[in-house]
Amino acid sequence: MAFGWIDEQADARRRAGLLRTLRPRPADSPLLDLASNDYLGLARHPEVTEGAADAARRWGGGATGSRLVTGTTELHGELERELADFCGFEAALVFSSGYAANLAAVTALAPHGSLVVSDAGNHASLIDGCRLARGATQVVAHADPEAVRKALGTGSGPAVVVSDTVFSVDGDAAPLGELADVCREFGAGLLVDDAHGLGVLGDGGRGAPYAVGLAGAPDIVATVTLSKSLGSQGGAVLGPARVIDHLVNAARTFIFDTGLAPAATGAALAALRLLRREPERAARAREVATRLHTRLTASGLEAVRPDAAVISVRAPSPEQAVRWAADCRAAGLAVGCFRPPSVPDGISRLRLTARADLTDGQLDRAVRVIGETRP
Amino acid sequence: MAFGWIDEQADARRRAGLLRTLRPRPADSPLLDLASNDYLGLARHPEVTEGAADAARRWGGGATGSRLVTGTTELHGELERELADFCGFEAALVFSSGYAANLAAVTALAPHGSLVVSDAGNHASLIDGCRLARGATQVVAHADPEAVRKALGTGSGPAVVVSDTVFSVDGDAAPLGELADVCREFGAGLLVDDAHGLGVLGDGGRGAPYAVGLAGAPDIVATVTLSKSLGSQGGAVLGPARVIDHLVNAARTFIFDTGLAPAATGAALAALRLLRREPERAARAREVATRLHTRLTASGLEAVRPDAAVISVRAPSPEQAVRWAADCRAAGLAVGCFRPPSVPDGISRLRLTARADLTDGQLDRAVRVIGETRP
Ligand SMILES: Cc1ncc(COP(=O)(O)O)c(C=O)c1O
Ligand SMILES: Cc1ncc(COP(=O)(O)O)c(C=O)c1O
Repeated sequence: MAFGWIDEQADARRRAGLLRTLRPRPADSPLLDLASNDYLGLARHPEVTEGAADAARRWGGGATGSRLVTGTTELHGELERELADFCGFEAALVFSSGYAANLAAVTALAPHGSLVVSDAGNHASLIDGCRLARGATQVVAHADPEAVRKALGTGSGPAVVVSDTVFSVDGDAAPLGELADVCREFGAGLLVDDAHGLGVLGDGGRGAPYAVGLAGAPDIVATVTLSKSLGSQGGAVLGPARVIDHLVNAARTFIFDTGLAPAATGAALAALRLLRREPERAARAREVATRLHTRLTASGLEAVRPDAAVISVRAPSPEQAVRWAADCRAAGLAVGCFRPPSVPDGISRLRLTARADLTDGQLDRAVRVIGETRP
Repeated sequence: MAFGWIDEQADARRRAGLLRTLRPRPADSPLLDLASNDYLGLARHPEVTEGAADAARRWGGGATGSRLVTGTTELHGELERELADFCGFEAALVFSSGYAANLAAVTALAPHGSLVVSDAGNHASLIDGCRLARGATQVVAHADPEAVRKALGTGSGPAVVVSDTVFSVDGDAAPLGELADVCREFGAGLLVDDAHGLGVLGDGGRGAPYAVGLAGAPDIVATVTLSKSLGSQGGAVLGPARVIDHLVNAARTFIFDTGLAPAATGAALAALRLLRREPERAARAREVATRLHTRLTASGLEAVRPDAAVISVRAPSPEQAVRWAADCRAAGLAVGCFRPPSVPDGISRLRLTARADLTDGQLDRAVRVIGETRP
């Protein structure tokens, strides 16, 4: 029978304790949120939600077509200019998601005959970008510039090195400066995914490339999402104008996808303006992360030192990770639970996010609940 | 230098007259729109834009996380239930775009060792899905059930046949009934992309699978976009509950992508409810398309007979297609212009869309302008 093999896979997942189901949340959830990627607490900020509402009213419910046909509004142009300016890049191009932005950037920068060097810990969207690209991919050890150097030494055509700036599972940072140095030795481009850096790292949240002085360089391209610190949906590629023009002409997830909805564009723009006015939000997110990490490790838990606002706490097994997260939830605390196959190394963990708007009291409560429910 | 090869590609594009640039539109464009995919004229309907605005206010600017973590709201659940019910399927799963829904459906339904049979005219997102899938892809002649039969005969493991219901370039329909018959001979699944069928085909716009009695069958899966007839952004996969559960567990563009923004979810839900109340919009879109086609061909133009609301008019060359579209624009009419590499056969054309809310006077004007500006 058609799709019969699906049931076998489902049984195997059930037996392994890896079956996932959706849990719709109400608008007024009483849970304390340490699970979302709303790092600056902007998703429900009235300026952001009004930004969405105004844009929908003024521009419509959707963009109505590809960005190349009717899907580019002046609002998209505004967001692109302000985002590029804020992050220190020459130009920006907005996509319907960070996922689509990553597919676009990798495929458009890795033509036939080129070499793509990809960190083993990269996000799924970068990995899919590598698989779609016409160039040949070499996966290298995590956060290892020496491994990148060796890989680049094997290529002869154009080359691009691809890395998250902050890795989504453990929240550790890539050695950006060293990666850029290695790339420059070989004339290779560097493409970094700053999904978890924008709004958190760099002066006032201008992102990881800005923080290390790489923003705006002719050989650096960054992608960001509008769905995390900016509390909206969408993604963008930032880089030299010639690279952005190239994407307009070559990136399939740009050309063959409907433009980002006006509401999402307006929400991201409102969040960006708010962040410019309140740059201290970025530092506060980092401070909350550091405090969370200090207190969790002081209580004997194994947690990775956060380079941004993601904290990963190790769990003994997938089953215990699931039970731990469920016990936190029962005690009023929402935490993320990452387990196979969503983690490259097979290690299950709780994933906590440090929101800039967590109060000290909320921090206390979170640490207490996580400690009391530990397996 | 890094990215040096980009300039050569840009020069080649310029010389071939194929360079694309973005043209941001104002909120109050005076152009008569025959270019967008807003088939039912709902993108700017107050119920739809208020649906977006209300959802943003109530649920926030973004979904804040993956659908598996914090990104599933009760609003997503509502849309999924109503969409499945409307289109006649058991279950539905909403994605951040139609592109992401297609990547998910193809990859999750084409495991290692399987065969994917893909129509040569399929949309870019289905093609990328085939390239990402672990199964082996065979591309077959356009709209040719006999070619599909031959291809299925070569496989031994699970198989899935993939086709647009209405092809995006020429607006012609796939032979769905025959495809389903062939699939059933071989126990293969049938996956159809109803991006251009939802809202236009079938009783009250319930889509192409519904129109031919395939909706809800255990071996049929459909994808739709929320970005065309529903005037919003996003996509969905519709099918048997077991297939949808499988996607929740296996589809990378579901698991590793932020959930659809509440505003887009709310706008699509409002549009769907409006369409239920005003089912005549679907028939009107088809009627407008037929009339446009009749009058264009009567005036000597070469146009494909529309099976839904897309009308393709042949142009002599890419340069003349661009000039024709520009002349229409100068005369106050927005039309789409498709040319290489966005068209599989290399033939350039004007692409017109028949909106249900076009008045007879607007139709007259459109036909006149297209005729007067023809190359
Ligand atoms: C590192 C990284 N890149 C890209 C994405 C995709 O972004 P989006 O959810 O906006 O599609 C995510 C998460 O969702 C991510 O964690
Ligand atoms: C046939 C078809 N499928 C899928 C898509 C992608 O949908 P979306 O734009 O919502 O991502 C499109 C157009 O955009 C399309 O024409």
